[in-house]
Amino acid sequence: MSNSSNMQHPPTCLEITMEVHRVVPPPHKSTIQKLKTRLKETFFPDDPLRQFKGQPTTKKWILAAQYIFPVLQWGPNYSLKLFKSDIVSGLTIASLAIPQGISYAKLASLPPIVGLYSSFVPPLVYAVLGSSRDLAVGPVSIASLILGSMLTQEVSPTNDPGLFLQLAFTTTFFAGFFQASLGFLRLGFIIDFLSKATLIGFMAGAAIIVSLQQLKSLLGITHFTKQMSLVPVMSSVFHNTKEWSWQTILMGFCFLVFLLVARHVSMRRPKLFWVSAGAPLVSVILSTLLVFAFKAHHHGISIIGKLQEGLNPPSWNMLQFHGSHLGLSIKAGLVTGIISLTEGIAVGRTFAALKNYKVDGNKEMMAIGLMNMVGSSTSCYVTTGAFSRSAVNHNAGAKTAVSNIVMSVTIMVTLLFLMPLFQYTPNVVLGAIIVSAVVGLIDIPAAHHIWKIDKFDFIVMLCAFFGVIFISVQDGLAIAVGISIFKILMQITRPKAVMLGNIPGTDIYRDLHHYKESMKIPGFLILSVEAPINFANSTYLNERILRWIEEYEAEEDLKKHSSLQFVILEMSAVSAIDTSGVSLFKELKKTMEKKGAKLVLVNPLGEVMEKLQKSDEAGDFMRPDCLFLTVGEAVATLSATTKGQSSNHVV
Amino acid sequence: MSNSSNMQHPPTCLEITMEVHRVVPPPHKSTIQKLKTRLKETFFPDDPLRQFKGQPTTKKWILAAQYIFPVLQWGPNYSLKLFKSDIVSGLTIASLAIPQGISYAKLASLPPIVGLYSSFVPPLVYAVLGSSRDLAVGPVSIASLILGSMLTQEVSPTNDPGLFLQLAFTTTFFAGFFQASLGFLRLGFIIDFLSKATLIGFMAGAAIIVSLQQLKSLLGITHFTKQMSLVPVMSSVFHNTKEWSWQTILMGFCFLVFLLVARHVSMRRPKLFWVSAGAPLVSVILSTLLVFAFKAHHHGISIIGKLQEGLNPPSWNMLQFHGSHLGLSIKAGLVTGIISLTEGIAVGRTFAALKNYKVDGNKEMMAIGLMNMVGSSTSCYVTTGAFSRSAVNHNAGAKTAVSNIVMSVTIMVTLLFLMPLFQYTPNVVLGAIIVSAVVGLIDIPAAHHIWKIDKFDFIVMLCAFFGVIFISVQDGLAIAVGISIFKILMQITRPKAVMLGNIPGTDIYRDLHHYKESMKIPGFLILSVEAPINFANSTYLNERILRWIEEYEAEEDLKKHSSLQFVILEMSAVSAIDTSGVSLFKELKKTMEKKGAKLVLVNPLGEVMEKLQKSDEAGDFMRPDCLFLTVGEAVATLSATTKGQSSNHVV
Repeated sequence: MSNSSNMQHPPTCLEITMEVHRVVPPPHKSTIQKLKTRLKETFFPDDPLRQFKGQPTTKKWILAAQYIFPVLQWGPNYSLKLFKSDIVSGLTIASLAIPQGISYAKLASLPPIVGLYSSFVPPLVYAVLGSSRDLAVGPVSIASLILGSMLTQEVSPTNDPGLFLQLAFTTTFFAGFFQASLGFLRLGFIIDFLSKATLIGFMAGAAIIVSLQQLKSLLGITHFTKQMSLVPVMSSVFHNTKEWSWQTILMGFCFLVFLLVARHVSMRRPKLFWVSAGAPLVSVILSTLLVFAFKAHHHGISIIGKLQEGLNPPSWNMLQFHGSHLGLSIKAGLVTGIISLTEGIAVGRTFAALKNYKVDGNKEMMAIGLMNMVGSSTSCYVTTGAFSRSAVNHNAGAKTAVSNIVMSVTIMVTLLFLMPLFQYTPNVVLGAIIVSAVVGLIDIPAAHHIWKIDKFDFIVMLCAFFGVIFISVQDGLAIAVGISIFKILMQITRPKAVMLGNIPGTDIYRDLHHYKESMKIPGFLILSVEAPINFANSTYLNERILRWIEEYEAEEDLKKHSSLQFVILEMSAVSAIDTSGVSLFKELKKTMEKKGAKLVLVNPLGEVMEKLQKSDEAGDFMRPDCLFLTVGEAVATLSATTKGQSSNHVV
Repeated sequence: MSNSSNMQHPPTCLEITMEVHRVVPPPHKSTIQKLKTRLKETFFPDDPLRQFKGQPTTKKWILAAQYIFPVLQWGPNYSLKLFKSDIVSGLTIASLAIPQGISYAKLASLPPIVGLYSSFVPPLVYAVLGSSRDLAVGPVSIASLILGSMLTQEVSPTNDPGLFLQLAFTTTFFAGFFQASLGFLRLGFIIDFLSKATLIGFMAGAAIIVSLQQLKSLLGITHFTKQMSLVPVMSSVFHNTKEWSWQTILMGFCFLVFLLVARHVSMRRPKLFWVSAGAPLVSVILSTLLVFAFKAHHHGISIIGKLQEGLNPPSWNMLQFHGSHLGLSIKAGLVTGIISLTEGIAVGRTFAALKNYKVDGNKEMMAIGLMNMVGSSTSCYVTTGAFSRSAVNHNAGAKTAVSNIVMSVTIMVTLLFLMPLFQYTPNVVLGAIIVSAVVGLIDIPAAHHIWKIDKFDFIVMLCAFFGVIFISVQDGLAIAVGISIFKILMQITRPKAVMLGNIPGTDIYRDLHHYKESMKIPGFLILSVEAPINFANSTYLNERILRWIEEYEAEEDLKKHSSLQFVILEMSAVSAIDTSGVSLFKELKKTMEKKGAKLVLVNPLGEVMEKLQKSDEAGDFMRPDCLFLTVGEAVATLSATTKGQSSNHVV
């Protein structure tokens, strides 16, 4: 029978027994030391002070200054050659930033000029503080959408524009404050909880919501719902068919097609990036000329109207830190802050990886946060590094943050001298620009990839998507994050635990269900738990292990193999344990004893071993004959001893 | 140098290379099959239908009936001998249940008689449905406290006693409904989230809050705060010193000392369980006689007053499923339901483990839930298995649920004939009974044990304790649960990842920091990740691994060892992966290639392997030369190939 040969299996059983390796307790560490290590790994996993080690004091000061102002790092080596590249890319993104700035401000229900203000000051601040060389800073579609939709819930931008503007700046201040705090307190990992799946679903949903909002400008409807979600917007569109204006629709359709074709060309051939980069500005100029030439604003095409000339007025006196809307500002600041941070950091990391330099997440958060705090007192609303513009910036050959300065100066010139030119720009073109920009946020290949790899992630994605479309932007996001966290908790509550078997001819033990050639060893039940053992799963693990033992005993009754003598728990994958976990082992020990079997632990890790030892005053778990370094050694040693015993006792 | 000898290390390098074991993909399973397995492990980990397998149909019906009504299991074998034991224990717990029932009802701000009603019907229901043989069912202190404190926040029991009673019964109904639903939907694992540490802190805090409330009766104060937390109660006590009544204080002190001494005696010598079991009834009788004899109720000692005779009146017409207080009833029902369930299940499991029988958690939840739903329509409030009375029941020799029936009949007799006797029972004695009962909930040795084993659990305990004392019962609990879950999330966000070294003379690889004798292998970086890799930790792991590589390169520059060729990731402990985790591997692969090193995976588990394979269209990870079953084999094979190469190329 295969059993008997199996029983013999570990070929050099006694030899191995001779050189069994002891499980040693981990080197002693005091609670303070442990706390220090834990805190370091939690808050300083990137070890930012590493470069300071062993440097002379002057060098340390220079490094510190360079850490705070990355401009000091690359500034001294800045050359004319780099400047040439930066000026081209800077002008390119400026041509994109002007129409997008105006459009996104409208998306946030703010005056269009605020979008330009926001493209002037924040890039300057970022150029000094930021560590990414490719980030193009300015207002972005999703943050604009969230800001607008959250604030309009309480204050109407048409009835009370002054208060709305105050709230927008206050929200921007709080967004910046939260961003900077997250960075300063080194809590940057909080944005990791927005998983890729969540973001893909969220952004696709937001893109659709944003596009639907543009139906107002694209169809020329004047009475439009204030709500954001799919159902009221569609009903608003189809209940106001009388208001549709064919001139607007025709114009919108033509420019939308133009913009989408330009986008398509640039996507196909990245060298032609300037086609899609220049298209919005071309559309604005062309449409403005058309309106001006044909006096189209008298024929049902709505235009932006007169814009104020001049640079950003100060706005710190508009920040409101009291009153009934404070809660709303804080909440909106938190949501927009985290969302725009996620976008900014993700963009920064993407291009840093492409060009092989490093972006320090927490440092970037402080930079973006300070940028928004400064912005909030200079009439800017929430800004961050924008996906689309950063890509254009990168493709246009940006070398340093100087491209942001070039863009900023261009915007300044626009603000000072060119504002009258925008008076006749039709709103429909701004709508078309927004739609063509957000279409890129719907990433169907990525969604397909997620479906292929992980069905649960796909469900999370769908929740974010439909939550955003049918409920609200922030609720959709909250639901998706909640489900993601719930999934992690379920993985802990129902940890994987498998039965191991021996791969014949080796001392390797692997999952019986995965490695079909692996075999059970009579008298042994070898189990592996693959999660930290804690209060959330100790009851389950207890039941699961007892079930295995009962199943073994049931087979035993059918005389399939000899009675259970050892339950070996492979603990290599149990990374942590708490008091409930420790109790589990005590209970298991007791149960085993009642059944006449022995509980053997294999390779408990440092922390786990220490806690078991502390709780084990009687020295039950930590006896050398219950503790082995590998499953192979445990099986070899234990089967040798039982064989010895049975030959002595002649059972 | 030790390095060169180390390099040679795997002794039978080539031999092992010959018999390298392939990592095989796991056996194919469809998404439906996987979902089925996952659902089964989540909701039916105890496999309740196992016993039905392979049985004839009649037997299946009998088993099903026995499953629903455990009384059918033990009923047929019930004997006179068992009944003798049960009658003794039943009478013992009845003598405890009468004074405690009256006291706990007062704790919940309900009429004392409701406490007796609640000790009559629910035990009968439980005797038929419940599977524990030791549980003594009735009202308990903590659920009474929570019920009272939550309802008094909105409705005053003195100004509007009718509404208060209606809300209490409605809350009981919802508590029962939630309990039964948790069991029926097999969501019983939710109570596992109340960890032992949380419960110890929570119960100690609740015991103190309950005891403080008793200062009202113990000091004879008439104007007492309605609030529960420490500060208002203490201020209420010391601002009303004029109301203190020395007669009450003297009486309370004497009986409290008597009860505590009795408790102490029974704790020291478990055989004298009847001393503490009988003490409350003795106190009630003695104090009632004293009051009656000395007409003490005319001298400042407040008494219960006239109690209505007769059995439970029906109360289903008092349940309110509409109106402004519905939300409160549902919330209070949820909290009291879960808390009392936790107590009931824990008590049941404790005694089942002692007597070596099994209690099915989900089944018990349905029993307790139905018991409360029936109770809510027969004038009972929330009941469950009580810690203290079940211990007495067990010590008194209870064999089956018949002891609950005996207790119930005794209470019935009391309700029918003995109610006038309680008219002169002083409230101060009820206060003393409560204090002496809840003192046992403060478990200092357990707290000390937790401190010794796990400092973080201790913090969770303190949060629960101080939260209950200073904020409120439900907030303290919520804070503690929140922190426990946060800890689990932190373990995932910052998973343990260690560098492995070879234990000389073996092919075992273990944590370099734990096993001091283990040695690095030049050219190799061997890392082990000990957590599922997902969105919450992929960024961290990426940074952590890159830091290791940089540290290796820094050492390399100091010429300590040869250049990095292989990064081996030991994946045995990575139990799951999601799309973000898959992206991590792609990124790592790219980074390695830029550095001229190779990424090697060791023993990826079934699910992880499958997902990596699916995402890996180019076949990058799954090439046999990047995939090994053990670290030993990987190192042996790879160092053999590089040696071969280097001798060929003569580098």
